[in-house]
Amino acid sequence: MSEVHAVRRGLLRDRCAAAGSAAALVSRPANVRYLAGGAPPGAVLLLGPGEDVLLCPRAPAGEGAHGRPDEALRIDLLPVPDEDPVVAAAGLAAASGAESLAVEEHDLTVARHRAMGKSAPRLKLADLGFTVEQQRIVKDEEEIGCLRIAAEITDQALGELLESILVGRTERHLALELERRLVDHGADGPAFVTSVATGPNSGQGRHRPSDRRVEEGDFLSVRLGASYHGYRCEIGRTFVIGTAPAEWQIELYDLVFAAQRAGRETLAPGTAYRDVDRAARHPLESAGYGEVLQPVTGHGVGLENEEDPQLAPTAMGKLDACVPVTVGPGVHLPGRGGVRIDDTLVVRPEADGGPELLTMTTKELLAL
Amino acid sequence: MSEVHAVRRGLLRDRCAAAGSAAALVSRPANVRYLAGGAPPGAVLLLGPGEDVLLCPRAPAGEGAHGRPDEALRIDLLPVPDEDPVVAAAGLAAASGAESLAVEEHDLTVARHRAMGKSAPRLKLADLGFTVEQQRIVKDEEEIGCLRIAAEITDQALGELLESILVGRTERHLALELERRLVDHGADGPAFVTSVATGPNSGQGRHRPSDRRVEEGDFLSVRLGASYHGYRCEIGRTFVIGTAPAEWQIELYDLVFAAQRAGRETLAPGTAYRDVDRAARHPLESAGYGEVLQPVTGHGVGLENEEDPQLAPTAMGKLDACVPVTVGPGVHLPGRGGVRIDDTLVVRPEADGGPELLTMTTKELLAL
Repeated sequence: MSEVHAVRRGLLRDRCAAAGSAAALVSRPANVRYLAGGAPPGAVLLLGPGEDVLLCPRAPAGEGAHGRPDEALRIDLLPVPDEDPVVAAAGLAAASGAESLAVEEHDLTVARHRAMGKSAPRLKLADLGFTVEQQRIVKDEEEIGCLRIAAEITDQALGELLESILVGRTERHLALELERRLVDHGADGPAFVTSVATGPNSGQGRHRPSDRRVEEGDFLSVRLGASYHGYRCEIGRTFVIGTAPAEWQIELYDLVFAAQRAGRETLAPGTAYRDVDRAARHPLESAGYGEVLQPVTGHGVGLENEEDPQLAPTAMGKLDACVPVTVGPGVHLPGRGGVRIDDTLVVRPEADGGPELLTMTTKELLAL
Repeated sequence: MSEVHAVRRGLLRDRCAAAGSAAALVSRPANVRYLAGGAPPGAVLLLGPGEDVLLCPRAPAGEGAHGRPDEALRIDLLPVPDEDPVVAAAGLAAASGAESLAVEEHDLTVARHRAMGKSAPRLKLADLGFTVEQQRIVKDEEEIGCLRIAAEITDQALGELLESILVGRTERHLALELERRLVDHGADGPAFVTSVATGPNSGQGRHRPSDRRVEEGDFLSVRLGASYHGYRCEIGRTFVIGTAPAEWQIELYDLVFAAQRAGRETLAPGTAYRDVDRAARHPLESAGYGEVLQPVTGHGVGLENEEDPQLAPTAMGKLDACVPVTVGPGVHLPGRGGVRIDDTLVVRPEADGGPELLTMTTKELLAL
């Protein structure tokens, strides 16, 4: 277990050394967690030049152990009660003889960066860039195992909701109920804010649940995901309420389903990110919905809900094996509603059976 | 309604002008919301030199209206689909003839700040510092009205929980139930992660709810708050489970209650922040608990759950009228548990009846 994090840190240290920095400071919480096995609030990770150390603000006496790094890690944990941990880290790096420290300029604020410079004026602050984020894209089997469990939990929560009576209940209540069920089934918590959208709201990925009640004839679209050991999956489904979907509902559903399948089918090592997006986007554009599509068709998942890669028209790069991504196109027609279908899958070579679908809930158009 | 935000922006513009910048860029979401009446995700507010404008990343077509600024504001909303809004803002300020732009260096990352400098090389980037946070400390009666409703909602949610059967239920479930009840009673959502701590976990303000079940004889401490129209209150209470509290429980409870009351009683315009902290801390230190106290006794509340002022031993500054703060000392004894009692109050002059208590749930030691 703890070996994994030491190996990740070793890899990062090699990359930093190659770029001319013997020391690096990681401050983005998901990156700290990836490299240290845990991220107490406010903790930052100093790699080299000496022993790796996790610097954290003073934990109030007796506070809970949530987010604490695995004790088996043997990574030193240094509380710095009266100082910003990044400033303490700069001092420590300078005192250890480092000439240059690579920092995450996309995470550090200008004020903190300046305070580091003041406290260690002879230390050159370089930019680590998105090195750790890049390192996180391809997952190991343990990480994929966590995602698989997160997806199972998500499927369970959603399945239970579908068995209950929906008409008359508000979006807000259904969203809370889904989140409760995620936790019931062992999630750390929801991976992101659960979206439940009914009637004219349906088909929007990020609709905030309102007090609108489910009515007969509505489309009902949900987007949710569990976080399990920090790993976050995502599922999106659209249902119809009542016995007989209208013609336009069936047509729109079939179209979005075909688009989503087309996107899924492109998932393979070597496929360009933009080609996944194009496969899912093209059928919807051809049907005249180009104007209402979202800018991104899918994205990586892991310790953050939306991480690299982005599956979008201008994205650069190609898929690797063992990259988990979402594929979730949707169409929302203002005033009428719409459809969104979203899965989490892991890219696998064809020899291994092709893309591994993690979110198993049926994509048939269910009439509830 | 919308006048309020224009007045706030006018005040900020005057302060910036006095500091030598005709233009300011506000990026911290709570500050954007305070000045514009809403903060769509990723939006930043450019004040002067021309018309104030809210720059936001392209909203996906038809997305929900959550967080949108009040339309009555007549503040221009400028989508900048292909650019970081802060970079677009720098370009706009330069094109409008601004020589200097004050930015929130404590919020902007180094990478974004650098991108602004590159895009508008002749624009001097100054530091706005915590000007907006300072402006937010004293609340108007409309803001206090929102906090009052948030507190009522919180009291209702907590009151209902106390009427239900607690023994045998997990911390996690009780926390979820409280959050559901907050929403039921009209909250936007919880103001922060609800904490429910039982038995040996009790008395910790930030304990993350676990699968531990409530047992007879436990202390049960809860910390929760509703967010209403963005305004966040906080309450903390400790109860005992079963018919007869143990002697040590009664003693500890009485001690923390006396300390919390002492802190509350100091709340008045002109009282130094540190004197509130000292009043609540001293009785606990005298009883030998100095080592296990948290570094902060209370803090401001408003659009963020923890905002200025901090009530702590080294805090500088004095209370004003109409500043809402929490007062919540606690003692946690490792392995045994503890007590925390936390209220939200508004500082009022004695002529107006002294501090206004917003969180009304009884502070008697209830045996449930």
